[in-house]
Amino acid sequence: MRFAVAQSGGPTAAINASLAGVYEAAMDIQRKLRSEGSSEKVEIFGVLHGVQGLLDGKLINLEERLSDPQKLALLKKTPASALGSCRFRLPPPEQDDSMYHKLLDVLNAHRIDALFYIGGNDSMDTVAKLSTWLTAHGSKIRIIGVPKTIDNDLVGTDHTPGFGSAVKYLMTTMQEILRDCSVYQVQSVTVVEIMGRDAGWLTASTCLLRRNGETAPHYIYLPESDFTVAGFLADVREGLKTHRSVVCAVSEGVTPPDAALFRSGVNDEFGHAYLSGIGKYLEKQIAAEIGCKVRSVELNIMQRCSAHIASYTDLLEAERCGIHAGWLAYSGASGVMVNMQRNSDAYTYEITYGEFPASQTANQIRKFPAEWISPEGNQVTDDAIGYFLPLIQGEVYPDMHNGMPVHFLF
Amino acid sequence: MRFAVAQSGGPTAAINASLAGVYEAAMDIQRKLRSEGSSEKVEIFGVLHGVQGLLDGKLINLEERLSDPQKLALLKKTPASALGSCRFRLPPPEQDDSMYHKLLDVLNAHRIDALFYIGGNDSMDTVAKLSTWLTAHGSKIRIIGVPKTIDNDLVGTDHTPGFGSAVKYLMTTMQEILRDCSVYQVQSVTVVEIMGRDAGWLTASTCLLRRNGETAPHYIYLPESDFTVAGFLADVREGLKTHRSVVCAVSEGVTPPDAALFRSGVNDEFGHAYLSGIGKYLEKQIAAEIGCKVRSVELNIMQRCSAHIASYTDLLEAERCGIHAGWLAYSGASGVMVNMQRNSDAYTYEITYGEFPASQTANQIRKFPAEWISPEGNQVTDDAIGYFLPLIQGEVYPDMHNGMPVHFLF
Repeated sequence: MRFAVAQSGGPTAAINASLAGVYEAAMDIQRKLRSEGSSEKVEIFGVLHGVQGLLDGKLINLEERLSDPQKLALLKKTPASALGSCRFRLPPPEQDDSMYHKLLDVLNAHRIDALFYIGGNDSMDTVAKLSTWLTAHGSKIRIIGVPKTIDNDLVGTDHTPGFGSAVKYLMTTMQEILRDCSVYQVQSVTVVEIMGRDAGWLTASTCLLRRNGETAPHYIYLPESDFTVAGFLADVREGLKTHRSVVCAVSEGVTPPDAALFRSGVNDEFGHAYLSGIGKYLEKQIAAEIGCKVRSVELNIMQRCSAHIASYTDLLEAERCGIHAGWLAYSGASGVMVNMQRNSDAYTYEITYGEFPASQTANQIRKFPAEWISPEGNQVTDDAIGYFLPLIQGEVYPDMHNGMPVHFLF
Repeated sequence: MRFAVAQSGGPTAAINASLAGVYEAAMDIQRKLRSEGSSEKVEIFGVLHGVQGLLDGKLINLEERLSDPQKLALLKKTPASALGSCRFRLPPPEQDDSMYHKLLDVLNAHRIDALFYIGGNDSMDTVAKLSTWLTAHGSKIRIIGVPKTIDNDLVGTDHTPGFGSAVKYLMTTMQEILRDCSVYQVQSVTVVEIMGRDAGWLTASTCLLRRNGETAPHYIYLPESDFTVAGFLADVREGLKTHRSVVCAVSEGVTPPDAALFRSGVNDEFGHAYLSGIGKYLEKQIAAEIGCKVRSVELNIMQRCSAHIASYTDLLEAERCGIHAGWLAYSGASGVMVNMQRNSDAYTYEITYGEFPASQTANQIRKFPAEWISPEGNQVTDDAIGYFLPLIQGEVYPDMHNGMPVHFLF
C-alpha cells in the first residue's frame, strides 16, 4: 500500500501536525498488517507544492525523513507547509481533463493507492473533482481531504485544524496590545485588523478575552454584519465616553458601502492605486473625524504561522485528523474530508472524527452564526465563548537553540 | 527612607521587571537596616503615569500591592508599564522652573528620599534636569535613572533592558515569517518593517537568524547607512536571481532621499496625507518596478510588548538594574543612570552593573556601529552576532489561565 500526502493553500501552525498524523497512520497500518501476518509494505511519500507539484512528479520518501521520532515531533510544532504549498484549482474536467490524465499517470507511475490533500475549501474542490474523475475512469486510487484553515470557514466540521492556534496567538497578542495601549493618560483608539476575508470567526474569537476579565475589544466587526464607516465612528465616539483606550477588532473582510475610495481611488506617484487594508483606512477616518490619538495594527501573516504560541488542543486535533484520514483510506473511502464533530455540554469537550463529502465542503463558506452577533452588529455574544474556549487549551513550547525556536525542514 | 518609582516612554516587555527590582531593593534595604539594629522603615510608592502623574500627586503604596511573591513574579512577566507612562519633557528650568517647584512640593509632601525613573533618553533628560535643580535648591532628594528601551540606543550602557526581549520576539516571528513566505513556488519578496526610528539595533539583530542556519533576511537596511529606493530595487533584483523568496529587514527609520512622496504627498478622499510606513512604500515600489508577488509586514507595537516570548536574560538584567538603582540611591547617588558593562570574551558573558551620568545619556542616540555594517550598506557582518546572541538566551513562559496569558494589573 502506497500513500502520498500533499499540502495546499495558506500556511497554518497546525498543517504539519496533520502531515505527521497521516505519516503515523501509515506506520500504524503497517504494524496492523504485520500483526495480521501480511507481508505487504506500507510506503508513504510527500508531494512537494500540492497538486501543482504532483503534476510535475515531485514526490519524496517520507519514511526516510521522518522515522526519527525527534524529527517527527519537531515537524508537528513547525509552522507553514513543510512540503510546500500551492494555490491551484483544477479546471472542470468536462471542459478539459488533460490534467486529470496527467495526475492519474503520475499516481500510477508511483503506484499510489491513496492521496491525502491537506487544505481548505479550494483543496476540497480538488479532492471532490479528482476523486469523482478517477472513479469514473475506473481507478481505485482514493483521495482523502484533511481540513486546514485558520479561517474556520469549512462546511461540515465543527471547526478546522489551524484555527485554534491562530486564536491562541490572537488572544496572546491582543492582550499584549491592550497592555501597550493603556499606558498613557490621553484618549486613544486602536484598530486591530484580523484575517478572515469571507467569515469573521477569527475576529469574533476576540470575545474570549472577556473570559479573562478584559473589557476590550470594545467593538468587534465581522463580514457577517452590516458595517458602515459612519456607524463605526459613532461607536468609537460612544466608546470614548467610557474608556480612555478604545480597542476595536475588525475583520479584513469588512466592506463599508460608504467608503468609496477604500482599496481603490488614491494613487501613488506612479499612478498605482494605494491599496490599504480596512484597519489603516479606519485609522485615517478616526484621525480625520475624531482627531484623537489613533493607531491601526495589521496582524498580517503572523496570525497564521505563529507556532511558538500554538494551541496544544489544535495540534493534537490536527494530528488526529491526519491519522483518521489514513484509516479512512485504508477502509476504502474516497472523495471525503475528515471532519470533527463536537460532543459536549457545558462541562465536557469531546471530538469524534468522521467524514464528510468533499463536494459539499468545496467552494462553500461557513459563516459565523448570526445568533452570536449582537443586535447592533458590533459585538459578539457570550454564547460564542463556550464554542471558542476549548480550542485554545494547552501549551506547546517550541524547541529552542541559541535562544531561537528550531523548525523542521525537509 | 521613602522611595518613589515611575515609568516613562514607550512600553517594553522588561520595564516591569525593573520596577520589581526597585521594589526588591527597597525590601532588601529594609532587611539590612533591621539587621543593623535600625528601626527605620523603608517604604516604596509607585507613581502613576510618570512625571506627569507625579505633578498630580498620583502615588500608590507598592508594598500593599506587591508583598505577595506570586504577584511580584507575575509583575516581572507582564508587558508594558504597569504604573502607566507618559511622554513628557520638563522645560529647561532657566526658562520656567514652576514645574520643578511643584515636583519638589509633591516629593516633600510625601517625604520621598529617592525617585527612580525607568525610561529612555527623554526620561534621562528628566533625571538630569530634576536632579541638578533639586541639588541646586538644597534638596537631598536623589533621582536615579533606570534604562529602558527596545531601541537599544542609550549612550553609556552596553545594551538596554527591553531590547533582548524585543530581539527574541523578532527572531521568533521572523523565522515564522520565513517559513510562511517560502511555501509557494512563485518568486516573492517580503519586506519586514522593524521599529527603531533613530538607530537600527533591532533591525540589525535579524543577522542572528544566520546563527540558526537561515539564509534570510537577505538584506538588512538601517538608518545608519545610506539607503535609496533605486539601490533597494537593485538589491532585490539581484536577490531574486538566487532566492525564490527574498526577505528584507528594513528599519522604520530608513529615509530614502529618492522617495519624494514617502509619508507625504498622496492625499486621501478628505485631503489628508496618506501616511504609510517605509515597508508599505517599498512594497508598492516592488509591485510597480519588479512586478513579482510582494508583501510588507509591519511588526508594529507587538515587538515592544511581547512578554509571552521574552528573553529570560533580558528580564533578569532589567530586574537587576532596578535592584542596583535602589542601592545607588541608598548610597546617596543622584543624577545617574544605572548602566550595564559587558565583561566577556568569546566564551563568557558577564554583566557588571554600574552608573553613568544621566546628563550624558539624555537626548543622545547611540548608533549601530558602522564597522558592523557591510560595505554595500545592505547587510550586517558576523561580528555583530556575538554582541546580540547572549541577550536572547533563556525562556520565560507566561502564566496561563483559560488558555490565555495572565497579566499583572495594579
